[in-house]
Amino acid sequence: MQPSPRQFLRELFDAALAAADPLARVPAHLPRPPKGRTVVVGAGKAAAAMAKAVEDHWPGPLAGLVVTRYGHGLACSRIKVVEAGHPVPDAVGEATAGDILRLVRGLSPDDLVLCLVSGGGSALLSLPAPGLALADKQSISRALLKCGAAIGEMNTVRKHLSAIKGGRLAAAAAPAKVVTLVISDVPGDDPSVIGSGPTTADPTTAADALGVLAKYAIDASPAVIAHLKSGANETPKPGDPRLARAKTIIVARPQDALEAAAARARELGITPVILGDSIEGEAREVAKVHAAIASQIARFGQPAEAPAVLLSGGETTVTVRGHGRGGRNAEFLLALALELKGAAGIHALAADTDGIDGTEDNAGAVAAPDSLARAAQAGLDARALFADNDSYRFFSALGDLVTTGPTRTNVNDFRAIFIAPPVA
Amino acid sequence: MQPSPRQFLRELFDAALAAADPLARVPAHLPRPPKGRTVVVGAGKAAAAMAKAVEDHWPGPLAGLVVTRYGHGLACSRIKVVEAGHPVPDAVGEATAGDILRLVRGLSPDDLVLCLVSGGGSALLSLPAPGLALADKQSISRALLKCGAAIGEMNTVRKHLSAIKGGRLAAAAAPAKVVTLVISDVPGDDPSVIGSGPTTADPTTAADALGVLAKYAIDASPAVIAHLKSGANETPKPGDPRLARAKTIIVARPQDALEAAAARARELGITPVILGDSIEGEAREVAKVHAAIASQIARFGQPAEAPAVLLSGGETTVTVRGHGRGGRNAEFLLALALELKGAAGIHALAADTDGIDGTEDNAGAVAAPDSLARAAQAGLDARALFADNDSYRFFSALGDLVTTGPTRTNVNDFRAIFIAPPVA
Repeated sequence: MQPSPRQFLRELFDAALAAADPLARVPAHLPRPPKGRTVVVGAGKAAAAMAKAVEDHWPGPLAGLVVTRYGHGLACSRIKVVEAGHPVPDAVGEATAGDILRLVRGLSPDDLVLCLVSGGGSALLSLPAPGLALADKQSISRALLKCGAAIGEMNTVRKHLSAIKGGRLAAAAAPAKVVTLVISDVPGDDPSVIGSGPTTADPTTAADALGVLAKYAIDASPAVIAHLKSGANETPKPGDPRLARAKTIIVARPQDALEAAAARARELGITPVILGDSIEGEAREVAKVHAAIASQIARFGQPAEAPAVLLSGGETTVTVRGHGRGGRNAEFLLALALELKGAAGIHALAADTDGIDGTEDNAGAVAAPDSLARAAQAGLDARALFADNDSYRFFSALGDLVTTGPTRTNVNDFRAIFIAPPVA
Repeated sequence: MQPSPRQFLRELFDAALAAADPLARVPAHLPRPPKGRTVVVGAGKAAAAMAKAVEDHWPGPLAGLVVTRYGHGLACSRIKVVEAGHPVPDAVGEATAGDILRLVRGLSPDDLVLCLVSGGGSALLSLPAPGLALADKQSISRALLKCGAAIGEMNTVRKHLSAIKGGRLAAAAAPAKVVTLVISDVPGDDPSVIGSGPTTADPTTAADALGVLAKYAIDASPAVIAHLKSGANETPKPGDPRLARAKTIIVARPQDALEAAAARARELGITPVILGDSIEGEAREVAKVHAAIASQIARFGQPAEAPAVLLSGGETTVTVRGHGRGGRNAEFLLALALELKGAAGIHALAADTDGIDGTEDNAGAVAAPDSLARAAQAGLDARALFADNDSYRFFSALGDLVTTGPTRTNVNDFRAIFIAPPVA
């Protein structure tokens, strides 16, 4: 029996999540145990599951401390798992970051630091540089989130206000060997960007950070401006000898999740079309382009004949103008539904692979050809909700939220648009 | 010898234009001459070239009158070509619309009206219904635009305040036969939308139009309200006997232009990927999605292996925030260049097939991997120009504008992004 379009899309999402599951992906990439001590540290939405994977497969003694988002924890026996604030850093994260930094200091060349980095690590591993307050960083993070800054831009700023990001953690661990296992959630899978690259040399400069603040007209405190202008707190740059023994392995990427979904689609006889693993832009505008490509498949069989499924990853942004609830994936889907106007045979799922769309309790949602009609019957004004950024309410009222709970991984957003063949 | 990437992209654009050229496309679709008279009327950016094509190939006597945009005229010997205001209607257009209506009245069943419709026809063929002033229509159009009414809602109102749109021209021509040749510039190629469908039955009603005015609380003049309430000025509906002898043939569409470019690419050994003939959205956001897909081809060979060329049509929009110059295609390209950050091997051309990007003298421009570097050398601040919507200045300074002059056709925008294979 063929799955329904909704079941099909959910299967693809599950395949994508499985391809990014730390418990499945981490073990094959573990390095050999060192002569000396093994210290496990880490931060990110996948940190607890990555720690559990290490613990379960490590053939020697180890100790460690990782920090993950509230609700994303998992019981470990030898590695301490702390939950802290995300996307806005909090005092727990700050204290834990300090503990992590102390844990890797004073190690010998025989020791190994196993660093587990995943998306969200940037906010979770938040330790202000000496002289700065967490409140400074928090208010800048909020402002950057609100104005729709790209993730790379946010990280450039964060690294230069931090005592631990941008390679500073690896520098602190020298002369120990540092192996970093990474689950990527960023375009291009650049380790210097993921979790703000705590063990990776940082090509960006304090001047770049000032440029981002200027671009979005962020009202930074005088202490922040002075810190960025001082030049005394630059991150380790490529070639820095303290990072000579630091090695990075990417264990899962957005592309892997898309490939897994594509493989599952192929098994079910549906042609997958991967548009990109790093599609960014304002969610409602990105949705228009996706709608146009889906329509092209339906009308002209381009770039593939139906039945086909468009797959894309990356992270859209929402410039908040209203007062409603809803993450970028729900906003994307409501925009898509409004654009497609109930076009027959087109279903879509969009969800955050970390299980949390924005700050809600859903991972994402599903839009169907009858979404607008059912909403109208339920007395919902789709356009008004859209104008108010209230996409959560729209899909919640329809019973079309996709809920997974925290997945303990993060390869960014997952979008799948299924185009059925024309009815004969 | 292989063409350079720039030459290649220009060849594709030329192939797209050739596929939409009225002189090439119209003759094959001409109907057989009638027993009686042949009257040629029409409106749109392609009207003059369509008229010339008819004149050159018509095997019998004819007379006629068409209206096109200022600068888009072409000398015809038997059909009068008038140039008028677009996108804001003017008195010349209004007078010509009246002349066209008079020309088709009083014909016999043996006569033929050949109606030539193309994009821009809606503004060029603007004739208020009896008792209404052009100012009434203009103020309502402005109010509807401002309150965010959907384009379908606006057209519902416009058709019911017009003496010629929404099938009224065909009704006036009855009992003569009416053959309408259309060059489409709209998503879906719906003849009731192209040029506001002067010869196509209109399913919307005056009551619908009143509903739209009420929905958005538009303060319409008493004359407008009375006109809509009278019930005497309804548009011809599907099944209206006056339109029984009206027939529409689409002679060129955005999709045809994309297919022609794709065919040329294939001849040159480059894989074409047609993303869609009706991609809409804010130009700078649409550019981000195109950049991500181009990067996916370069990095992962998806959705096609390089060498490949992404092709898309449709009409982006620019929400003007700055004070610079530049149409939506130049804005798209500058956004693309900023997004790709000089990525090797990716060249792009974007242009309006009518030959006019916005209100400038260029059709579009070309972006190359070295565009940003050359701009920096020339002392241009690409980000500042972008923020000021000054993309024309950017590409003009680089000598990278694409200039065709008015093409006398219009199948909307044309975008081509060439991705070279990775250097071995």
